[in-house]
Amino acid sequence: MAKIMVLHGPNLNLLGKREPEVYGRETLADINGKIISFAEERSSSVETFQSNHEGQLIDWIHEAMSWADGILINPGAFTHYSYALRDAITASGLPCIEVHISNVQSREAFRRKSVLAAVCIGSISGFGWKSYILGLRALLDYLEDNDPA
Amino acid sequence: MAKIMVLHGPNLNLLGKREPEVYGRETLADINGKIISFAEERSSSVETFQSNHEGQLIDWIHEAMSWADGILINPGAFTHYSYALRDAITASGLPCIEVHISNVQSREAFRRKSVLAAVCIGSISGFGWKSYILGLRALLDYLEDNDPA
Amino acid sequence: MAKIMVLHGPNLNLLGKREPEVYGRETLADINGKIISFAEERSSSVETFQSNHEGQLIDWIHEAMSWADGILINPGAFTHYSYALRDAITASGLPCIEVHISNVQSREAFRRKSVLAAVCIGSISGFGWKSYILGLRALLDYLEDNDPA
Amino acid sequence: MAKIMVLHGPNLNLLGKREPEVYGRETLADINGKIISFAEERSSSVETFQSNHEGQLIDWIHEAMSWADGILINPGAFTHYSYALRDAITASGLPCIEVHISNVQSREAFRRKSVLAAVCIGSISGFGWKSYILGLRALLDYLEDNDPA
Amino acid sequence: MAKIMVLHGPNLNLLGKREPEVYGRETLADINGKIISFAEERSSSVETFQSNHEGQLIDWIHEAMSWADGILINPGAFTHYSYALRDAITASGLPCIEVHISNVQSREAFRRKSVLAAVCIGSISGFGWKSYILGLRALLDYLEDNDPA
Amino acid sequence: MAKIMVLHGPNLNLLGKREPEVYGRETLADINGKIISFAEERSSSVETFQSNHEGQLIDWIHEAMSWADGILINPGAFTHYSYALRDAITASGLPCIEVHISNVQSREAFRRKSVLAAVCIGSISGFGWKSYILGLRALLDYLEDNDPA
Amino acid sequence: MAKIMVLHGPNLNLLGKREPEVYGRETLADINGKIISFAEERSSSVETFQSNHEGQLIDWIHEAMSWADGILINPGAFTHYSYALRDAITASGLPCIEVHISNVQSREAFRRKSVLAAVCIGSISGFGWKSYILGLRALLDYLEDNDPA
Amino acid sequence: MAKIMVLHGPNLNLLGKREPEVYGRETLADINGKIISFAEERSSSVETFQSNHEGQLIDWIHEAMSWADGILINPGAFTHYSYALRDAITASGLPCIEVHISNVQSREAFRRKSVLAAVCIGSISGFGWKSYILGLRALLDYLEDNDPA
Amino acid sequence: MAKIMVLHGPNLNLLGKREPEVYGRETLADINGKIISFAEERSSSVETFQSNHEGQLIDWIHEAMSWADGILINPGAFTHYSYALRDAITASGLPCIEVHISNVQSREAFRRKSVLAAVCIGSISGFGWKSYILGLRALLDYLEDNDPA
Amino acid sequence: MAKIMVLHGPNLNLLGKREPEVYGRETLADINGKIISFAEERSSSVETFQSNHEGQLIDWIHEAMSWADGILINPGAFTHYSYALRDAITASGLPCIEVHISNVQSREAFRRKSVLAAVCIGSISGFGWKSYILGLRALLDYLEDNDPA
Amino acid sequence: MAKIMVLHGPNLNLLGKREPEVYGRETLADINGKIISFAEERSSSVETFQSNHEGQLIDWIHEAMSWADGILINPGAFTHYSYALRDAITASGLPCIEVHISNVQSREAFRRKSVLAAVCIGSISGFGWKSYILGLRALLDYLEDNDPA
Amino acid sequence: MAKIMVLHGPNLNLLGKREPEVYGRETLADINGKIISFAEERSSSVETFQSNHEGQLIDWIHEAMSWADGILINPGAFTHYSYALRDAITASGLPCIEVHISNVQSREAFRRKSVLAAVCIGSISGFGWKSYILGLRALLDYLEDNDPA
Repeated sequence: MAKIMVLHGPNLNLLGKREPEVYGRETLADINGKIISFAEERSSSVETFQSNHEGQLIDWIHEAMSWADGILINPGAFTHYSYALRDAITASGLPCIEVHISNVQSREAFRRKSVLAAVCIGSISGFGWKSYILGLRALLDYLEDNDPA
Repeated sequence: MAKIMVLHGPNLNLLGKREPEVYGRETLADINGKIISFAEERSSSVETFQSNHEGQLIDWIHEAMSWADGILINPGAFTHYSYALRDAITASGLPCIEVHISNVQSREAFRRKSVLAAVCIGSISGFGWKSYILGLRALLDYLEDNDPA
Repeated sequence: MAKIMVLHGPNLNLLGKREPEVYGRETLADINGKIISFAEERSSSVETFQSNHEGQLIDWIHEAMSWADGILINPGAFTHYSYALRDAITASGLPCIEVHISNVQSREAFRRKSVLAAVCIGSISGFGWKSYILGLRALLDYLEDNDPA
Repeated sequence: MAKIMVLHGPNLNLLGKREPEVYGRETLADINGKIISFAEERSSSVETFQSNHEGQLIDWIHEAMSWADGILINPGAFTHYSYALRDAITASGLPCIEVHISNVQSREAFRRKSVLAAVCIGSISGFGWKSYILGLRALLDYLEDNDPA
Repeated sequence: MAKIMVLHGPNLNLLGKREPEVYGRETLADINGKIISFAEERSSSVETFQSNHEGQLIDWIHEAMSWADGILINPGAFTHYSYALRDAITASGLPCIEVHISNVQSREAFRRKSVLAAVCIGSISGFGWKSYILGLRALLDYLEDNDPA
Repeated sequence: MAKIMVLHGPNLNLLGKREPEVYGRETLADINGKIISFAEERSSSVETFQSNHEGQLIDWIHEAMSWADGILINPGAFTHYSYALRDAITASGLPCIEVHISNVQSREAFRRKSVLAAVCIGSISGFGWKSYILGLRALLDYLEDNDPA
Repeated sequence: MAKIMVLHGPNLNLLGKREPEVYGRETLADINGKIISFAEERSSSVETFQSNHEGQLIDWIHEAMSWADGILINPGAFTHYSYALRDAITASGLPCIEVHISNVQSREAFRRKSVLAAVCIGSISGFGWKSYILGLRALLDYLEDNDPA
Repeated sequence: MAKIMVLHGPNLNLLGKREPEVYGRETLADINGKIISFAEERSSSVETFQSNHEGQLIDWIHEAMSWADGILINPGAFTHYSYALRDAITASGLPCIEVHISNVQSREAFRRKSVLAAVCIGSISGFGWKSYILGLRALLDYLEDNDPA
Repeated sequence: MAKIMVLHGPNLNLLGKREPEVYGRETLADINGKIISFAEERSSSVETFQSNHEGQLIDWIHEAMSWADGILINPGAFTHYSYALRDAITASGLPCIEVHISNVQSREAFRRKSVLAAVCIGSISGFGWKSYILGLRALLDYLEDNDPA
Repeated sequence: MAKIMVLHGPNLNLLGKREPEVYGRETLADINGKIISFAEERSSSVETFQSNHEGQLIDWIHEAMSWADGILINPGAFTHYSYALRDAITASGLPCIEVHISNVQSREAFRRKSVLAAVCIGSISGFGWKSYILGLRALLDYLEDNDPA
Repeated sequence: MAKIMVLHGPNLNLLGKREPEVYGRETLADINGKIISFAEERSSSVETFQSNHEGQLIDWIHEAMSWADGILINPGAFTHYSYALRDAITASGLPCIEVHISNVQSREAFRRKSVLAAVCIGSISGFGWKSYILGLRALLDYLEDNDPA
Repeated sequence: MAKIMVLHGPNLNLLGKREPEVYGRETLADINGKIISFAEERSSSVETFQSNHEGQLIDWIHEAMSWADGILINPGAFTHYSYALRDAITASGLPCIEVHISNVQSREAFRRKSVLAAVCIGSISGFGWKSYILGLRALLDYLEDNDPA
C-alpha cells in the first residue's frame, strides 16, 4: 500500500475563497477530501500538508524520506524561484510530480518558468482540482511500475 | 458520447522501435490500442492520426471541426516552433490537451519552450504512454463538465 | 497584362468561419472574388492558391517562375519562422508583397517578427481583406513602373 | 466628407532632394499634391503638416482632435523611440495609419522596431510615395466602414 | 517660503479629456488648482508648466536654477527615453521628485523603465492626481529638512 | 474608521541601528510610533508587523482579510523575488501600497525590479521614514474615495 | 558495399537556375550525377531525393532505416528551425553528415544557427557542389572505419 | 578569543545521507565536530546553526550582531536568489565568508550566480567539508589581522 | 576657406556653470571663443549653435546644406537615442565629426551607445573643451584632403 | 604546385596523448605525416606549424603572405575569441579554411561560436584527423578553380 | 612528496607595487616566499612561474604534465576569456585550483565570469595573498586524499 | 620634455600593405615617422613598439612605468577582448589614450565594444593615420596641463 505526501504551497489555503475564476470553487479541504477518496479507491493512503513557508515545506519533504513512497506537490509561486525546494526534492530521492490548478503557461510570463520541473517525474497543469487526481493517479501508477516487490 | 481526435506528430510512428530508454517500448499501435480501450470504458470514441507533415496535421484539425468534440495532441518537435499548428488549434475552437511521453523540461533546452501550451487547456508530460491516458481522461472530464446538455 | 500569383498560407481556408473579430467575416472565396474583380479592373489576372503545407507553398512559388509576374502572399503563421519560404521567394526572383489581415504588430509578441519581410518589396497589415486589395494595387503599380516594355 | 490630417515626421522635408535611391525623386510638395488629388477623388480633404520637432507633431495631433476624422502619419525616425508620439495617438482617439516610403524591415536593425505600430490600425511600407496613397485609401475605407451615419 | 516648479510632460494637457479610466477626470487646470492650493496651505508657491516639447521642458529646468528651490515633474512618456531630461535635472542641482498618475508598473512593459528615477530623490506613482499632492508634500518636507537657514 | 495593516519585511527590524546613511536614524519603533500617530489624526487605526520570514508575512496578509481595510507594505528585499507575496496580495483582495525608504532606482541593478508593484495600487520610494506616512495618507484617501458607505 | 541516402532540402531543386553567384551553376541533376559517379568509384551506391516538404524528408529518413547505411543531407533552410528533422535523424540511428553549398557562417545572421549539427557526425560548408563530394567521402570513410564486418 | 557563527542553509541537514557523490559522506554533525575541533586549535569558539528557513537564518544573523565576531555561511540554494539574506549580512556589519561543498561553477547554470558573494570578504568552493575548514581559517586570520586590540 | 557649423546639443549651454568636475570650468562662450580663434588660425570660419531642442538641431543641419562644408557636433544626451538626428546627418551629405567633453565610455552604461557614430567620419571623446579643437582640426584636415579644387 | 600553410592552434601539440575519446589517438606528428602525404599525392607541398601563442600564429600568417597560396587552420580554442587572428586572416588576403577534429557544435555552448568562420572560405568539423584531409582537399580544389594561370 | 606548479597570470608581477588597496602590499617575490615556506612545512615542493603571455602559461601547463602533481593558478584577467587556458588545464589531466587575491564577485561585472572554474576542483577568492596559501593547502589535502599509494 | 610610449597592436605591422581602403596607404614606418616628427615639434620624444603578442604589449607597458610619461595605444583587435591589457594600463598608473585608424563604430558589431576605453583618458577614431597625431597632441596637452612642475 503506497503512502503519498501531498504538499500544497503558498496561498493554496485560500483555495475556493478567492479568485474562483482562476482557481475554482473547491476549498483546500474539499480537494483534500477528493484526494483521500481517490487514494482509498486505489488502496493507498495520503497525508496532506499546506504551508506558506518555504522552509516548512522543505522540512516536510525531509521527513517524508522516512515514511512516504512519493510526493505530489503544488508548489504555488515557489515554482518560479525556490531552488531550495528543488534541492530538497532531489535530496529526498522520492519520486515527485508537480501539479498546478491553472494552466500556468497561459498566464503571466513569470509563471512560465519552473525551477522544479527538471527534478520531477512529470507535471500536470490546467485541469482545476482534477490536476491533483490526475497527478496522484500518475504517481501511483509510477510506483506500481517500479515496485521491486 | 464524446468523439475525440488523437493526433501524433512527427517521428511518433517510430515509437517502440527506437530510443526506448526515452520513449518506452510500446509501439504507436500499442498505444493507440490502449487509448481506444480506455475511451470505450468511458463510453467515448477516438480516431487516431499520425503524420510527419505539419500541413497534414493542420488539415486534420480543420476537419475535426465537423466531427470531433476535442483534441488530444502529442505535437512532437512541432511543439517548439509550429505557430501554424497553434493557429489551427485556436481556429478550431475545440478544447485541446497537449501530451508528451518524456519529461520535456528535463531534456535539451530547446524542448522547454512550447508555442502551443498557451492555446491548450492543459498539458501533461513525463509519464510514458500513460501521458496519453491521463490526457484523455482529463479531456473527457472537461467535456462532461462543460456539456450543455 | 500582368499575371499575379496570390498565395494564402496556413489556416486561411477558415477565413470568415472562425474568429471574425480578428479576421473579419469574408470567406476565402469572398476575398478571392474581390481580388479577381479588382485585377480585372486593372486589366490583369490572378491565380489564387491556399495550403496549410509549407512545402506546397514553396512548390507553387517555384512554378510561378514560369508564368507569373509577381506574388502577393499572406504567409499566415509561416511569417514567423519559415526560412524555407523566404529562400523560395528570393530564389524565384519575382517581386513579392506580404499582406496580413490583422495588425500583427498589436497582437502576441511572436507575431511581431517576420522572417520574410526583408525579401519582399513591402508589407501591408491591419486592413482586413482590404489588405489584399491594397497589396495587389501596390504590386501592379510596381510592375508598371518597372516594365521594360 | 472625411477630413484627414497627414503628418510627415523628421527629415521628410528633404524628400526628393537627398538619397533618391532610398526615398525616391518626388519632393514633399509633389507628394502632398498627389495626396490632395487622391483625397479629392474620394470627396475628402486633407491637411498636410511636416516638422522635425517631436513636440510640434504632438501639438498637431492634439489639435486634430477638434477637426480631423483620422490621421495618416509617416513618423520618420520617431517610429523607433517616440513613446510620447505613441501616447498622443492613443490620447487623440483618432484612427491612425502608419506609412513608410522605404521597406524599413530590410534596412538597419534599429529600423525594424516601431513603438507606434501597436496603437495604429495598420501600417504600410516599401512602396515609395505610393505608400501614402495606399494608406490614405485604407484610412478612408476604414472611416466609411465605421461611419455611424 | 519655498518656490517650486511643477512640470507636466507630453500629452498631459489632455488630462481629464481622454482615457479617464487611466488618467482620471480632473483636467490639468483642475490639478494645477489643487497643487496651488496645497502649496498655499504650506506657505509655499508653485509655478506650473506643461509642454509636449522635450527641449522646452529642458529650457524651463535651466531657468528654474535662478528662481526655484525644487522641481516636481510628471515626465509622461519622456520617462522612458529622455536622457536629455535626465541630464538637465542633474545639471540643475535642484532636488527633483518624479510623479505618475497611473501605476506605471502594471501597464505596458516599456513603461516599467524610468531613465530619470536615478537622478530624483524619490518617486510616487499610481494615486491619480493625488500623486502630485503627495509628491509636493514630500518635496516641501525635503526642503524644510535640508534648509540651511 | 479604517483599519490598516502595516507590514515591514526582512531586515527592517534593524532600522536606525545600521546603515543610517541609507535607511536613516529612526528605529522601527520610532517609525511605528509616527505611523500610529498619523493614523490617529486621520481617525484610523493601524496594526504593525515585522518579520524576516516570507511565510509569516503571507500568513499575516491572509489574516488581514478578516479585519483590515488595506495594507501598507515595505517588502524589503522580497520586493525583488517573492512571487508568493505577490500572490498573497492578489488573493487578499485588499488594496495595497508599496513603500521604500531609499530610492531603489538609484541603487544596485537588482533593486530596480519589483515583482509586487503590478498588484499594488501605487508605490512610493525615496523619502526615508516619510515614505510610510505618504503611503498611509494615500491609502486612507483611497479608502475614503472608494467607501461604499 | 555501402548504401547512402542523399537528401536535398527545400529550394535545392532550383540549383543552377537561380543565384549562381551564391549556389554555383550546376543543376541538381548535375550534382546528383557527380555524387553517383563518386559513389561508384568507391564501390558504393547512393539514392538521391529532394523535397520542399519537411514531412516528406522525415518520411524518407524513416524509410532509410530499412535500407541505407548512412545519410548525407543538405537541409537548406530547414537547418535553422526544423527540430522535427533533427528528431528524425536521431531516431533513425543512422550516421548523418550535414553539407551546405555556401559558407553559411558568412551570410545572414539567421543562417549561423544549425539545429541539426549536434546530431550529425560532422558538417561541411562553403565548397559549392564539392561540399557533397567531401561529405560523401567522409561518410564512406566513417562507415569503413566503423564496419563491424 | 574569536567567536564565530557557522550557518548552514537549506537541505544541509541531509549531508552525508544523500547524494554522497556530490556532497561527500560526512554528516552535518561530523562536519560541525571538525569545525569545532579546528576552532579550539585556534583558541576560538564556534556556534553552529542549520535551518531550511530563510527567515530563521536572517534572525540568527541579526542575533549574531550581539555576540559573534564573524560569520561563516554555506547558504545552500539561497546563494542564488536570497537578496534578503544578502541584506542581512550587509546590515550585520560582520565579516562574512561564503563556502560551498561542491564546485558550484561546474554544475547547473543557475548555480553559477551568487547574490551574496559581493557582500562577503571572499568565497571558497569545491573542497568538500574542507571548504568549511579553509573558510574558518581564512575568517580567523582576517579577524586577527583586523583586531584593533 | 572652409565654413564649419558647430552644433552643441542639450544642456551644453550650462557648460562651466555646473558639474565642473565632469565638464570643466569653461563656459560655452569661452569654448566658442576658442573654437573661433582656432578656425581663424586655419583661415576658416565657424558658426556656433546650441539648442536643447532636437528638432531645432535638425532644422539647423538642414540649413547647413546651403552654406556649410562640414559639421562638428557634440550631441549631448541625444547621442544615445536620437535616430532623427542621425537621419539628418546622413541626409545632409556633409562630413560630420562627433565630439564629447567627457570620456563617455567610463561613465554610466547608457552613455556607451552612440546611435550617431556610424554616420560620422570619426569621433573624439574625453579631452574636455580640447575635444572640440581636436575635432575641428580633424574636420579641416579632412576637407583639405578631399578638396576637389 | 600549390604551397599550403597548415596551422595548429593551442593545445593541439598534445593530440593523441590526452582525451583520445574526443580528439582521437593520432599524434600531431602522425597527422602532419598524413597531411604531407596527401599533399604530395596532389603534387602540392605543405608546411606545418603549431603554437600555443596567439601572437606566434599571427606572425606566421603574416609570413605566409610571402610564400603560401592558402592556409588550413585548426584554431583550437582561439576559434571562440581571437579577433586578432581573424584580422590576420583578413589582412593576409590568402584563402583560408577552418577545420576542427571534434564536432564543436555538439560540445559546450561556448564552442558553438566561431569568430573566424566569417573570414574563411569554409569550415569542416567532426571527422577526427580526416577533417584536415578533407579541408586540404577543399583548399587545393579551390586554388585550382581560381588559378589565373 | 607532492610537487606543485604555481602559476601567476598577467600583471601579477606588479603585485605590491601598484593598487595596494586592491591587491595588497606584498610583492610577488614575497608571496612566492610564503608559498614555498608553506610547501616545505607540508613536505612538498613548489615551482613558481609568472607570465603576461597566455601562450607561455599554456606551455608551462603542458610541461607540468611530466613533473607536477597539481596546479595552483591565479589566472588574472585570463580568468574571463582564455578558453585556451581552460583547454590546457583539461588536457593536462592535473588537479587544478583557481585562486584570486581580491573578491572578484564584488568588482566590475566582467570579473564575475570565470571560464576556468568549471575545469578546476575548486576556487578561492578574496583573501589577499592568503588565498594562495589556502589554495595550496586545499591542493595538498586533495592529493593526499587521492594518493593511490 | 615628455617621453611617450606609442604601442601598435596586432596586425598593424601590415599597415599600408593590405586593405588600404580601410586602413590607408601609409606603412607603419611612415606613420611612426610622422609621429616622431610631430613629437619633436612639441619638444617631446616617443618610442614606438609593435607586436602581435598580447603578452609582449603588457610587458612593454610594465617597462614604461620606469621611463615614460604617457601611453598612446592602438590596440587593434585586442580592443574588444583583452582584459589583461586593460589591467596593465590600470596598473601602470600612466595616462593612456586609445586611437583607431578606422571609424570602429561603423564596422562589424563586435568592433563597437572597447574593453579598454573605460581606463583611458579619452579615445579618437576614424581619421586614418591622423588619429595618432591627434591623440599624441591630446596626450602632450594633458601632460602639460597636469605637470606638477
